[in-house]
Amino acid sequence: MTPSDIEAELKKIAALAQLETLPRFRSKPSVDDKAGTLAGKRFDPVTEADRQAEKAIRAHIEMVFPDHGFIGEETGSSNIDSEYCWIVDPVDGTRSFIAGLPSWGTLIGLLRNGEPIAGMMHQPFTGEFFISTGGLAWHEQAGNRDELVTSNTNSLDQAILMATAPEMFEHENLEAFTAVAQNVRLTRYGFDCYAYCMLAAGHIELVVEADLSPYDILPLVPLIENAGGIVTNWRGHRDLYGGRVIAAANVELHQQAIEIITFSSKR
Amino acid sequence: MTPSDIEAELKKIAALAQLETLPRFRSKPSVDDKAGTLAGKRFDPVTEADRQAEKAIRAHIEMVFPDHGFIGEETGSSNIDSEYCWIVDPVDGTRSFIAGLPSWGTLIGLLRNGEPIAGMMHQPFTGEFFISTGGLAWHEQAGNRDELVTSNTNSLDQAILMATAPEMFEHENLEAFTAVAQNVRLTRYGFDCYAYCMLAAGHIELVVEADLSPYDILPLVPLIENAGGIVTNWRGHRDLYGGRVIAAANVELHQQAIEIITFSSKR
Repeated sequence: MTPSDIEAELKKIAALAQLETLPRFRSKPSVDDKAGTLAGKRFDPVTEADRQAEKAIRAHIEMVFPDHGFIGEETGSSNIDSEYCWIVDPVDGTRSFIAGLPSWGTLIGLLRNGEPIAGMMHQPFTGEFFISTGGLAWHEQAGNRDELVTSNTNSLDQAILMATAPEMFEHENLEAFTAVAQNVRLTRYGFDCYAYCMLAAGHIELVVEADLSPYDILPLVPLIENAGGIVTNWRGHRDLYGGRVIAAANVELHQQAIEIITFSSKR
Repeated sequence: MTPSDIEAELKKIAALAQLETLPRFRSKPSVDDKAGTLAGKRFDPVTEADRQAEKAIRAHIEMVFPDHGFIGEETGSSNIDSEYCWIVDPVDGTRSFIAGLPSWGTLIGLLRNGEPIAGMMHQPFTGEFFISTGGLAWHEQAGNRDELVTSNTNSLDQAILMATAPEMFEHENLEAFTAVAQNVRLTRYGFDCYAYCMLAAGHIELVVEADLSPYDILPLVPLIENAGGIVTNWRGHRDLYGGRVIAAANVELHQQAIEIITFSSKR
């Protein structure tokens, strides 16, 4: 597959997912839903969006690439020893989704022999794509493309740090995150995958998170790296399968943050 | 002024503000800016956006309504004993703005004899208006209008709570906020004025904040109240000039949260 083949597939997949997610975003219970709720079935548009979008994506990939692997949040894994493997989180940021906030996204990544080679974040409410393939990374909205380039701020006290929510950290993870937060210019919460995209786009400098799943982070790795950033686990290793993740705009910031995390864990 | 006159003015003001804010959102330093930074002038697009937007809004109001009052974040107050007084925060959520996050907004309110009678939140990146005038409140995007109606969830353990950032709370304020947060279904951070709009739109049920300024909250009061919600200070009184603010989707939730806050402050 060429990079432009991959780009075309990523966008087809985003379009199919959007048909299932966007109509359910900010939806209210209908009379039927209310009757269902009374009968004990909870009105749950985000779970429906997640499930139906993944079903649509999986059906498309199985049809077009019957020999490719698939790792999904909802439907599990199949064929993961194939050369190519797709990894999908149809709605990353389900809590944002249920609160009506346009900070969730559809994540799709492509692994080749286990290595992330392409990825996309699509936010259908704002119409934004963050795409990486063929060694390039760009933002696209209403047909306009802008290259993603990370910030060259290389001093931690000038950096903006983000994480999805303070509640994602417990015990020693909380201590390490707090130690990093005490050394940056500004900490913001609440943006899920969108935060990694803002890092790739050069607007923020650090994302430090815990308890991620592989499909939460692997689709974002090519975006971050091809924009000039670095993403590893908290020990600084690139063998990323979720868990504790740090993304930084550049090597200097990454090193400064890792030192603080390491020191915090030794206390 | 009729409600439709007011709506037309609010939208004109939003359009003027957008000309100053949107081009500076996600802007990067130019060569000139970098030279300025080296010369000791910091590249500061959000302060420029704030100042230039307020200047444009103020000039417009002084031209069209020379006898009206004006309360601005940047340029201060004038003529505030007039029957009509405009209150403006050109960029509410400056920290979101600098982080590239589309969760800031331009706030404009109209007071009549000190009472908020109309208000608007405009988010130019998503193209969303949240408008209230003439006893109505609606969301408008790409010409589509939807009435704003708050949630009828009336049990705290089913409610979604929001606040701009955990750092806005200190000492007894933090204790009170934490006590409320421990009793809700979900707490989210990071959305400034957008959170009050999501409450008006029925997607979340509570916003509890501290350290607000009058222009942070007064433009939002008509939106919240005309959507069916209630907004007061933490003692439950409607004399709102900022400070500690609670907005709730309905009277039941408001009462439950106020009880927790009151109990927390007595411990």
